[in-house]
Amino acid sequence: MSIIGALNLINEFLFSFPMNAVWLKNLDLSYREDVPIPIPGIDEALIKVHLAGICSTDLELLRGYYPYEGILGHEFVGEVIDLQSDDPTSRSWIGKRVVGEINITCGKCKTCLRGNSTHCENRSVLGIINHDGVFAEYVILPLRNLHEVPASVKDEAAVFTEPLAAALEIQDQIHIQPTDFVLIVGAGQLGQLIAQTLALTGCELQVVTRYPHQGKILTDRAIPFIKENEIPQNKVDIVVEATGSPEGFTLALQAVRPRGTIVLKSTYKGDVQLNLSSIVVNEITIIGSRCGPFFPALNLLDTHKVDPIALIQARYPLKECLKAFEQAVTPGTLKVLLYPG
Amino acid sequence: MSIIGALNLINEFLFSFPMNAVWLKNLDLSYREDVPIPIPGIDEALIKVHLAGICSTDLELLRGYYPYEGILGHEFVGEVIDLQSDDPTSRSWIGKRVVGEINITCGKCKTCLRGNSTHCENRSVLGIINHDGVFAEYVILPLRNLHEVPASVKDEAAVFTEPLAAALEIQDQIHIQPTDFVLIVGAGQLGQLIAQTLALTGCELQVVTRYPHQGKILTDRAIPFIKENEIPQNKVDIVVEATGSPEGFTLALQAVRPRGTIVLKSTYKGDVQLNLSSIVVNEITIIGSRCGPFFPALNLLDTHKVDPIALIQARYPLKECLKAFEQAVTPGTLKVLLYPG
Repeated sequence: MSIIGALNLINEFLFSFPMNAVWLKNLDLSYREDVPIPIPGIDEALIKVHLAGICSTDLELLRGYYPYEGILGHEFVGEVIDLQSDDPTSRSWIGKRVVGEINITCGKCKTCLRGNSTHCENRSVLGIINHDGVFAEYVILPLRNLHEVPASVKDEAAVFTEPLAAALEIQDQIHIQPTDFVLIVGAGQLGQLIAQTLALTGCELQVVTRYPHQGKILTDRAIPFIKENEIPQNKVDIVVEATGSPEGFTLALQAVRPRGTIVLKSTYKGDVQLNLSSIVVNEITIIGSRCGPFFPALNLLDTHKVDPIALIQARYPLKECLKAFEQAVTPGTLKVLLYPG
Repeated sequence: MSIIGALNLINEFLFSFPMNAVWLKNLDLSYREDVPIPIPGIDEALIKVHLAGICSTDLELLRGYYPYEGILGHEFVGEVIDLQSDDPTSRSWIGKRVVGEINITCGKCKTCLRGNSTHCENRSVLGIINHDGVFAEYVILPLRNLHEVPASVKDEAAVFTEPLAAALEIQDQIHIQPTDFVLIVGAGQLGQLIAQTLALTGCELQVVTRYPHQGKILTDRAIPFIKENEIPQNKVDIVVEATGSPEGFTLALQAVRPRGTIVLKSTYKGDVQLNLSSIVVNEITIIGSRCGPFFPALNLLDTHKVDPIALIQARYPLKECLKAFEQAVTPGTLKVLLYPG
């Protein structure tokens, strides 16, 4: 039998079994054991998920932030076990440990051609928009979305690559100088990663915490923190809003100085009431900030300049996903990991 | 009698008469003939107001946008007729035709020292915050706020210096390239000045108009315009919101492309309801923009690169101020001028 013939046989064997997955439908989460293992299309990889992280966007999807039905989850590390490609060199991906960019893009629209492919007009998004996510035994992603994880980066660090990249997006958008006074409002999982990345710039940094364990993690990295009632008023050069709630913006607006900048990292369901005139009078700049670059994120993990391990608060097997989500929605909870294996 | 003695005598004579002024108190406007002529303090000038312009901020003050009691108005051109200064060279200001910056600043606070003096922490603002304005026969301003008007710039053009400077603030804040697609939402007095200044950048420019006469002024300057229902969706690189109303922001947010920029120029009373998550997901930048540089504004008037005369819609003597305001609040009205003389 040829190699191709053997691979096809393995594929058939594999795909004849269903897999376990966390399914979202009508804002209702369920653990399903009957989800078909997905079949990679051309230039796509089938990845066995080693572990996955619950992100606050997953919790917002549960609250109806965006209408989505399918397998939830977009933070993962896994291993390529199969792929389809006309390019024989692509097979070198097989067996590689990978993380994956979450935007599945067309590469052809005006936005992609301008180089803003994370904003592709025709994109689907892993576990968020029209593409089954990673809270499952297997997941499909285009080969061009994959990044090999350096050997020194353990799975439990690599699973933070996506949120760490999102934290680094801030530095792709604005130039932070060592003379800048920077305040991060919110010390949850994303706020903590942002704190670690901004600390590298040498800026004057403070993080607004709500829970004692958030402060402890920051102290261990020599990052100063304050409480909500200690936020300086109209004094901060750059405020990063990472609370995941509408109240965070109000605090950010009070803290920022005239001509200062507010970076918005939170996505949540619902509107805020806002006095735009105060933004005009004080000439505030507000910058929305979403997905960021994976390669520098992996590099920071590889060189241990960022260490996310202290952010792991709980580990659950996939089948205990409902318990895991129960813990994740508890205010103050940091990273909850799911193990499909 | 010495010169100083003679000047003091003139001062005493002058200040023994009251002056006419437009007074705002408890959101109520009145024409008063009994307001004392103000006396310049050290390094301040007494200016005889030639003419003044009604700005939409004046209308918003009438609606309670900011609590202010006193003489209204901040757009003016006039002549220095007296001053106080220990520096004898300052007397060369006497007889000069001037316009004046509206922020009266301390020069000593952290914000002033950083070079952001228009945001001075201790500022008063001509006709807006704790400083009597220009809808009067005379007004006081610090000498350092004054700019001499070039001889070629007529009073009816010079009176536009302050809003023209505000229009130019945009180009101090963001770099507009000839390849940028720029949309101005709102073709009122400020929108028109912004249109004329942005047209100088060579960018692809469109202005959203609501009234036929707004379009005519733009056509006369070869600036393309569209109607509200023709606004392109998610396509514009830079949107300038200059409608003076909350609805303008909604239109701006619909028009801007992912990773695009919205410049906010409108100040008005009241809040807007806003989905901040859409700003995060689309990584929009929002920039508040207020007062701008006077010197380049006067230069553009001097070189006729900007011509505001077509924006004048009505002229009233000061004593008909109530009629003037009645016209100014009518939607679609462009510049209404007041003549104290």
